[in-house]
Amino acid sequence: MSAIGSAIPFSPETNSPILKESPMVNFVSDGLNLSPSQYLKVLNQIIETKGIQVDNYSLDGIVEEFEQKFAKLVGKEMAIFLPTGTLANQLAIRKLCGDSKRAIVQNQSHIYNDSGDCVQSLSQINLVPLGQENASFSLEDVQELFQKNETNRVKTNIGMISIESPVRRKTGELFDFVEMQKISAYANEKNIKMHLDGARIFLASAYTGIKPTEYASHFDTVYVSLYKYFNAASGAILAGPKSVIEGMFHTRRMFGSGLHQSWPFVAVADYFMEGFEKRYAIAKSISDEFIQKLKTEERFKVNRIENGSNIFNLELSAISAQDFSQNLKKQDILANPKNKTSLNLLVNESLNSTSANELFTKFKNALKQ
Amino acid sequence: MSAIGSAIPFSPETNSPILKESPMVNFVSDGLNLSPSQYLKVLNQIIETKGIQVDNYSLDGIVEEFEQKFAKLVGKEMAIFLPTGTLANQLAIRKLCGDSKRAIVQNQSHIYNDSGDCVQSLSQINLVPLGQENASFSLEDVQELFQKNETNRVKTNIGMISIESPVRRKTGELFDFVEMQKISAYANEKNIKMHLDGARIFLASAYTGIKPTEYASHFDTVYVSLYKYFNAASGAILAGPKSVIEGMFHTRRMFGSGLHQSWPFVAVADYFMEGFEKRYAIAKSISDEFIQKLKTEERFKVNRIENGSNIFNLELSAISAQDFSQNLKKQDILANPKNKTSLNLLVNESLNSTSANELFTKFKNALKQ
Amino acid sequence: MSAIGSAIPFSPETNSPILKESPMVNFVSDGLNLSPSQYLKVLNQIIETKGIQVDNYSLDGIVEEFEQKFAKLVGKEMAIFLPTGTLANQLAIRKLCGDSKRAIVQNQSHIYNDSGDCVQSLSQINLVPLGQENASFSLEDVQELFQKNETNRVKTNIGMISIESPVRRKTGELFDFVEMQKISAYANEKNIKMHLDGARIFLASAYTGIKPTEYASHFDTVYVSLYKYFNAASGAILAGPKSVIEGMFHTRRMFGSGLHQSWPFVAVADYFMEGFEKRYAIAKSISDEFIQKLKTEERFKVNRIENGSNIFNLELSAISAQDFSQNLKKQDILANPKNKTSLNLLVNESLNSTSANELFTKFKNALKQ
Amino acid sequence: MSAIGSAIPFSPETNSPILKESPMVNFVSDGLNLSPSQYLKVLNQIIETKGIQVDNYSLDGIVEEFEQKFAKLVGKEMAIFLPTGTLANQLAIRKLCGDSKRAIVQNQSHIYNDSGDCVQSLSQINLVPLGQENASFSLEDVQELFQKNETNRVKTNIGMISIESPVRRKTGELFDFVEMQKISAYANEKNIKMHLDGARIFLASAYTGIKPTEYASHFDTVYVSLYKYFNAASGAILAGPKSVIEGMFHTRRMFGSGLHQSWPFVAVADYFMEGFEKRYAIAKSISDEFIQKLKTEERFKVNRIENGSNIFNLELSAISAQDFSQNLKKQDILANPKNKTSLNLLVNESLNSTSANELFTKFKNALKQ
Repeated sequence: MSAIGSAIPFSPETNSPILKESPMVNFVSDGLNLSPSQYLKVLNQIIETKGIQVDNYSLDGIVEEFEQKFAKLVGKEMAIFLPTGTLANQLAIRKLCGDSKRAIVQNQSHIYNDSGDCVQSLSQINLVPLGQENASFSLEDVQELFQKNETNRVKTNIGMISIESPVRRKTGELFDFVEMQKISAYANEKNIKMHLDGARIFLASAYTGIKPTEYASHFDTVYVSLYKYFNAASGAILAGPKSVIEGMFHTRRMFGSGLHQSWPFVAVADYFMEGFEKRYAIAKSISDEFIQKLKTEERFKVNRIENGSNIFNLELSAISAQDFSQNLKKQDILANPKNKTSLNLLVNESLNSTSANELFTKFKNALKQ
Repeated sequence: MSAIGSAIPFSPETNSPILKESPMVNFVSDGLNLSPSQYLKVLNQIIETKGIQVDNYSLDGIVEEFEQKFAKLVGKEMAIFLPTGTLANQLAIRKLCGDSKRAIVQNQSHIYNDSGDCVQSLSQINLVPLGQENASFSLEDVQELFQKNETNRVKTNIGMISIESPVRRKTGELFDFVEMQKISAYANEKNIKMHLDGARIFLASAYTGIKPTEYASHFDTVYVSLYKYFNAASGAILAGPKSVIEGMFHTRRMFGSGLHQSWPFVAVADYFMEGFEKRYAIAKSISDEFIQKLKTEERFKVNRIENGSNIFNLELSAISAQDFSQNLKKQDILANPKNKTSLNLLVNESLNSTSANELFTKFKNALKQ
Repeated sequence: MSAIGSAIPFSPETNSPILKESPMVNFVSDGLNLSPSQYLKVLNQIIETKGIQVDNYSLDGIVEEFEQKFAKLVGKEMAIFLPTGTLANQLAIRKLCGDSKRAIVQNQSHIYNDSGDCVQSLSQINLVPLGQENASFSLEDVQELFQKNETNRVKTNIGMISIESPVRRKTGELFDFVEMQKISAYANEKNIKMHLDGARIFLASAYTGIKPTEYASHFDTVYVSLYKYFNAASGAILAGPKSVIEGMFHTRRMFGSGLHQSWPFVAVADYFMEGFEKRYAIAKSISDEFIQKLKTEERFKVNRIENGSNIFNLELSAISAQDFSQNLKKQDILANPKNKTSLNLLVNESLNSTSANELFTKFKNALKQ
Repeated sequence: MSAIGSAIPFSPETNSPILKESPMVNFVSDGLNLSPSQYLKVLNQIIETKGIQVDNYSLDGIVEEFEQKFAKLVGKEMAIFLPTGTLANQLAIRKLCGDSKRAIVQNQSHIYNDSGDCVQSLSQINLVPLGQENASFSLEDVQELFQKNETNRVKTNIGMISIESPVRRKTGELFDFVEMQKISAYANEKNIKMHLDGARIFLASAYTGIKPTEYASHFDTVYVSLYKYFNAASGAILAGPKSVIEGMFHTRRMFGSGLHQSWPFVAVADYFMEGFEKRYAIAKSISDEFIQKLKTEERFKVNRIENGSNIFNLELSAISAQDFSQNLKKQDILANPKNKTSLNLLVNESLNSTSANELFTKFKNALKQ
């Protein structure tokens, strides 16, 4: 147990029973990668402390309670639980577009590439990609598109703009915040709606110092993942104005996502959302110290993603990434090779059970063939 | 504990730890109505005995294992887990229709009335309702529709027929089995596909003596609910030929139902599916004996649903249904009034923790004002 | 040339150059069945008299002029030309539904049976059929459906009601006018929109004495065919409030119906719409007198459609319908057998070039083998 | 009448009655810009010579005859008349995609910009734009997209590639023919379908020397406009294999484009398609000679579009484009200013009624203020 870690008395705000027991540190996920047995321990702990009010087709009980808590946390009127981020993004875009069936997205976004063209197939919306190979697009790009759109022979209104940040396909690179604000102001002027695919926005927040509420304030709706770092087995949540969220449970059900009971997901997300900011600040601080130490060792080369978030790249010269990864595993550290000579390391709460020193020692040990 | 109940040693095939502990009998649900704490006990038991191999976005691990087991159980090549029956029905109809975008359904079916017009809205399929106010339609109805369809000015091919049995909107009444077989043979001849919305087919089976495999043999695909009597918090499963099911996980994901992890649902369904037939035979036998006893008491009138399944109606003359229900609750029996003078009682596995005698005694007690 | 016919001096209000020249009477169509050469004569006449201002992608010129004229004629704010009634009905239903994607239609209607399920396929709207085998449905039917709709587990709002009258599939039978008015009042109360598929409403009007404006006043939108009795080669027109029709030309274009030029259709419709009411009154009066005469001859049996419009059935006992039809043709009368013993005869403007006496004589002649 | 023009005896293959009578030359359209009166003269001429067999809901008669003639002309098995190119492109893409709902198009194409997102809205197909601001994209672009598509988390198959050439938005610039052939070969290998938006392919052909059949041979389907230079009031035609075109009239009707009669469009297109190649070769030759002459006058600057077709730009230094245009009009020449100092001139058949000399003289005259 690390100095910092041990200094933190157990409390949901700072640590969890899982972390106390489990010595395993992972660099492969945004969250804790709970085993079923760990997952049940968390659920048991919740039942024993605050109890779980069951939901009824994802309405009422702990689900409603969590929705209200989340809405408040990101400064919105209402929120709705959804089983996946794919659905959260689609329902937001579908609703915000209304009758204006064109939406602007990043060419590199998850919704444009990795959602099976769901918005186009099921909601008949044309997603127009901007930004080419970049994480961001600019206000200028948006304005040009609006101008070009005016020349179209048949009216095709742009209803909304969806922005993903951090961008999964760009190794967690963030959308430029200055452009984001400008675009939001421009959209507001033109009565165009804005959606934030903020699956990992709480991670980004720790790196940028910009609070989730501040990010959310530039958007009508914001989606956050519940399984990535809030450790639910599955789930997502979408917050926004009452006019958008109210009654959306009908659409959720129509899409086949009105789960009979969602409490096995929501209770866990609720548990880890509580105090996440503080705990993750610790994880980041441990990782920052750890990175500084890594830089002192010439057999390591640390590559930060420009304008990035919780992912950094570690280049190795003395050993193959494959062997290094195996050596780490023997010391209870999970880290996956990206290619033959480097690893992408993800900073998450599992670091809170260790210290920068301990990590550095183990990483140096792992250099030995 | 009843004579029958106590005679059954604990084993997943006949009973569960939950039932041993919980004295509560419910007549309000098709299943056990597990509390979160009971739910966790089941999961713990599973982890301690066979363990849980986690799934990855609803692929592999216990999900795949369960899909294979279920496919075998209903005599199909493959099966796929889906979070809800609404989605299971839609994906079956969508896939079986292919380019022939008309499908026949019951006018009283769940998919026609209670699924938010999902098939029409998201898959652009015209559901043509047959059977009016009845649970069944006949081969003749189908043939007439095909004939009428021929006179349509623009070709609109009928791609498939969906049949729900038992029918939820008809208090569990079954689709006429003779007509079902005739329709299936006719469809087969015309190369029209068949889907069974068999959400409660394992319940029906106990009442008709027709095995789920026998039902399924008349259909290309069959959907069964996982939360109603297999007691998962949520979930459904769809089985059919490889040509239909293989690759359907892409569509599942496109619809926003590729849950990051489904094991908290699937493990529980798997646990209760094992030995369900035997256990439910006991529940039915207890209820049959119980009904016989009820008939001996003139203040009770038992109304069976013609061609029905696990629901029967109990009419009261001596006491209001409301008061009767409250009196039962005091004796750990849940039963909801249907109206002022009667209750619809659902037979489920919770009866296995009691006996016909005990039930009859408590019901008689409850008559006292 | 008949007494009545010859008494009418040539004028667009009463007759056309075509009718003066052509001795052919047809009972097979709602209109004049113009040959290309006759069609060109009409167009030439228009160019020589009032001229034709060409349209530009179905905007401006004679198209706009005609749209305004028609809107006024049926008492609506605006109208839009569309190439077919199939599209007119779809665009009306699509627009009036808005986000409420259920619409009520007659089970026997053209849009439910003979339009290739276009509304379901292209606009994702669920058409719910009422009225079974009848031309009409009742207010009670509508109210029952609304009530049933309330019990649906997922909200599925009914956005509009479409009524076809006369009904093509019911041999021109009219929708019950009393029920139509009641339904309209009820819809108005509930803010449900109403559309009239009035393809043949100007024919109906001659038979009921109810003016097209009076019919239209019970609906938000009304569609009238331009090719059936206004004799355009193709075309339809949809009238309604500005809020519905304005900007619909974008949707028209999106559907692939923004014809580069529509004047070859619209000019002809415009020509025949002028004075149609008066001319068709004459046709009806000739046919009424003719029917009276037919009834005096025992080898003819006239069957009127109850609550019908311009179609009547003529039953033959002395000769086959086939032979009779051929005998008529030799006398320049077109009439198609419906089956071996009877013909369905359609009353149209071509009767204006003859007289009841002349027709009766020729029909009697045709009885001779 | 010019020397060349007068040398051509009147015949449908080389000239039309319209051109003989009308002294007006236009540089504003791809075709003859017929007035209603001229249009009727053509139709009259057709009726008087070969006659017009009417169609029945766009089936049979002259429509079928024309479809067969066109299919043969471009080397395909079948063809179908459609009222607009917007619909022709959509039905081709819709059908060729099948279940693979991604299609590649040019970012600058008509279907991506000027068709109201019809394919996305009505056929749920995701159009992926390539080529940025260019008329062409390359095989490499296509291969990169296929590669990127492989990395998508949810399978989204690319079903077809649509290529527009010449490109309207690029002033008639042609798609690179070498790349077109490479892409076609690659698509063929991968069983990806190909569609040619060849609205103006007969114009392109005159400039490239590549026959329409040769272009069409690299595609499954090819659409050609009927109103641009074949002078129908409206219309389009789509040719392809029987497996694609057969039965498409049902879809045409479903989309609301089963015109009751299309002969007023098709007869005219048929008339002008006959002999078009020869007549347009003359128009091009006159324009080429005319351009050479323009180059001899220093107050004119001719700008050719690189890899262009029938449009060239004329820059003026001595007079405003506005005044110049008015001066031409006084001499029966239509030409629209593009901006203050130049005009885009379109070469079409109307040049056949004049000569390069006459044109040059009139253009020089028009320079006088």
